[in-house]
Amino acid sequence: MPSHAEEPRGGLTIVGLGPGRREYMTARALKAIAAAEYVIGNASYLEPLGPLLAGKNVIRSSMGKEVERAQQAIDLARSHAVAIVSGGDAGVYGMASIVLEVLENSGAAVDVEVIPGVTAANAAASRVGSPLSGDFAVISLSDLLTPLEVIEQRLDAVFSVGIPVVLYNPKSRGRPHNFALAVSHARKYLAASTPVAIVKNALRDGEEIIITTLGEAEKCEGTVDMHSTVIIGGSESRIWRRGENVKGIITPRGYHRKYVY
Amino acid sequence: MPSHAEEPRGGLTIVGLGPGRREYMTARALKAIAAAEYVIGNASYLEPLGPLLAGKNVIRSSMGKEVERAQQAIDLARSHAVAIVSGGDAGVYGMASIVLEVLENSGAAVDVEVIPGVTAANAAASRVGSPLSGDFAVISLSDLLTPLEVIEQRLDAVFSVGIPVVLYNPKSRGRPHNFALAVSHARKYLAASTPVAIVKNALRDGEEIIITTLGEAEKCEGTVDMHSTVIIGGSESRIWRRGENVKGIITPRGYHRKYVY
Repeated sequence: MPSHAEEPRGGLTIVGLGPGRREYMTARALKAIAAAEYVIGNASYLEPLGPLLAGKNVIRSSMGKEVERAQQAIDLARSHAVAIVSGGDAGVYGMASIVLEVLENSGAAVDVEVIPGVTAANAAASRVGSPLSGDFAVISLSDLLTPLEVIEQRLDAVFSVGIPVVLYNPKSRGRPHNFALAVSHARKYLAASTPVAIVKNALRDGEEIIITTLGEAEKCEGTVDMHSTVIIGGSESRIWRRGENVKGIITPRGYHRKYVY
Repeated sequence: MPSHAEEPRGGLTIVGLGPGRREYMTARALKAIAAAEYVIGNASYLEPLGPLLAGKNVIRSSMGKEVERAQQAIDLARSHAVAIVSGGDAGVYGMASIVLEVLENSGAAVDVEVIPGVTAANAAASRVGSPLSGDFAVISLSDLLTPLEVIEQRLDAVFSVGIPVVLYNPKSRGRPHNFALAVSHARKYLAASTPVAIVKNALRDGEEIIITTLGEAEKCEGTVDMHSTVIIGGSESRIWRRGENVKGIITPRGYHRKYVY
């Protein structure tokens, strides 16, 4: 007869893995993976975990099967330790909401913990200076789950008050023109000189960074893809230089209004 | 004569430490601290680093001296490895922008790296379900560096399109009424039943969580302080229940519009 301590004890962690590389994961995220019997997630997020997955049941899922993945995770978590992983932060365009919704509907008495991670907005921003130093907004250009006219209203609202805007899912095969559409909304409110950063694979292999301006951004449409995060600066954002070289974007916090430096 | 490898080599890392506890820091952040000869930051952020600071020059600074702290960090970084730390993500209401601005003006040839961390929006959200699952905005209620009328315009814009809004610096001794002011702006656009989370000391000692609604939020004004992050749900956000118990907030991503679950 197994002792009490050996009885299977279920539980679910919803883990944000950050931009990708192990060094940008938190110790708490790694611990949750280590403690899991089952690890569920997209193959691209699981790959950097490498040897951490040895001896575990690994369920590689693909985009567009989020509801099934959530149901499967909850079923398994009734009697097993399950970690379901998202890139970035699981609470931002990740698996947290659908898992919690399905859990609520199921009535299953499963312990659940959401473990935050470094989201793509912060990972991308760190690679181009400090574009999000103050207020900002995060908007996805994917119209799979949100109607395009709602996305456009949100873009107008946030651009109209001049705060920097981070665009997630800026382009995909199904919506090749959404990036240009977002730029055209920005141009209604912001100068052509407003800086724009396109960060592809931030802090992952294949990282690529383009610093441009709203006036020139459309020319970069070809380089924007589904692995890109785009940051459109606000009315106070400017190019950040070191000597003659463009290094990124700074959105000053406003110290210049109070101090001389 | 020192060998080449022993020559002092300067450099600056601007490090986001996440919500506070060591387990929510990234390995990259901890490595930067370990490699630093000088570590500069507010005492409250440095405290969790404990033994990691042994043998280092530690410069504890206080709020409101950010410009001096940035200048000091850059001067030291010409010939020493310096880490300047912020809570959360250094690029969000943290030290990154002012350090990069001062560096740009100084012309100093100092290598600099911004290391992202888990920002308070994501840390607080993870404690109350999944309130930021889709688009959202981050607005600080501190009017030290941004005029209050600009903050109010931004609040109107983001509340008017029904996206969840994270309020940083929701209250302090100098501005006791800004939380109630933000709630009154939200009420112009959102139902009284819209969920609100007040998360004090997210993922730190002394954590306290209140789930309420816009209609009731003003009654909670007394519990909001400068260590709190407030999340005001959007038009699609709702209370998340387990059985009879209120557990947090979910903002559905929209799967319910495409799938039955």
